Amino acid sequence: VTFQLDTRLGGDTFDATDWALCRVLLMNDARFPWVVLVPRRPGLVEWHDLDALDRGQLAAEIARASAGLKMIASAAKINVGALGNIVPQLHVHIVARTSDDAAWPGPVWGSGPSVPYEPTARDTLLARLRAEL
Amino acid sequence: VTFQLDTRLGGDTFDATDWALCRVLLMNDARFPWVVLVPRRPGLVEWHDLDALDRGQLAAEIARASAGLKMIASAAKINVGALGNIVPQLHVHIVARTSDDAAWPGPVWGSGPSVPYEPTARDTLLARLRAEL
Repeated sequence: VTFQLDTRLGGDTFDATDWALCRVLLMNDARFPWVVLVPRRPGLVEWHDLDALDRGQLAAEIARASAGLKMIASAAKINVGALGNIVPQLHVHIVARTSDDAAWPGPVWGSGPSVPYEPTARDTLLARLRAEL
Repeated sequence: VTFQLDTRLGGDTFDATDWALCRVLLMNDARFPWVVLVPRRPGLVEWHDLDALDRGQLAAEIARASAGLKMIASAAKINVGALGNIVPQLHVHIVARTSDDAAWPGPVWGSGPSVPYEPTARDTLLARLRAEL
């Protein structure tokens, strides 16, 4: 069995890059600078499904995405979440928040319809993620 | 500078136990079996504020809480989240979710007023958390 990205996750995101463990995706929602990390292992659902090595690597890649996105987005706070109530494949949201964003101080999940990126803005942000995360 | 639990976090929770890195708290909301892990280090706000050793230990303690709470609560899914938009002190929510709970499939954060535990139910759950997590 090999890793395959969930089709719904794939449809909601753009591919940024691959790190040692995770696929790095940009969520197609211009309201929030929002990256999704997906460990490229088949069959993972819960955090505790990761083995100890991958767990440590995921923690390191969350830190990398969190620090980079905070800088790129001049964010007040980074939100980290692994929910999976709708898409069971294990994935970790890293979301840059500011006190004037569309959902502050609430969570971004369930905060109303996403706003798709305009292609130029998307490509600019993807280039920055690839260079600076 | 020594670790001190944020007063708002302390007021919303009950003390379960201390692990190697984290204080383990039970959220006072009977709608959801809900544990909060707080690394006992002063000054942490973001995930990337953790040093590499503590990051790995936090990842291990999240896995321990996630697996234990899933079993104790017969949960369909565990949600993991570190938001901090309201309480900046780094803390990680571990929440047991079922498809008939008060917020499914949305997030628990911002899902309406909490329902305080009745003391007997609270003490029973705290005893199980101490014995089985």
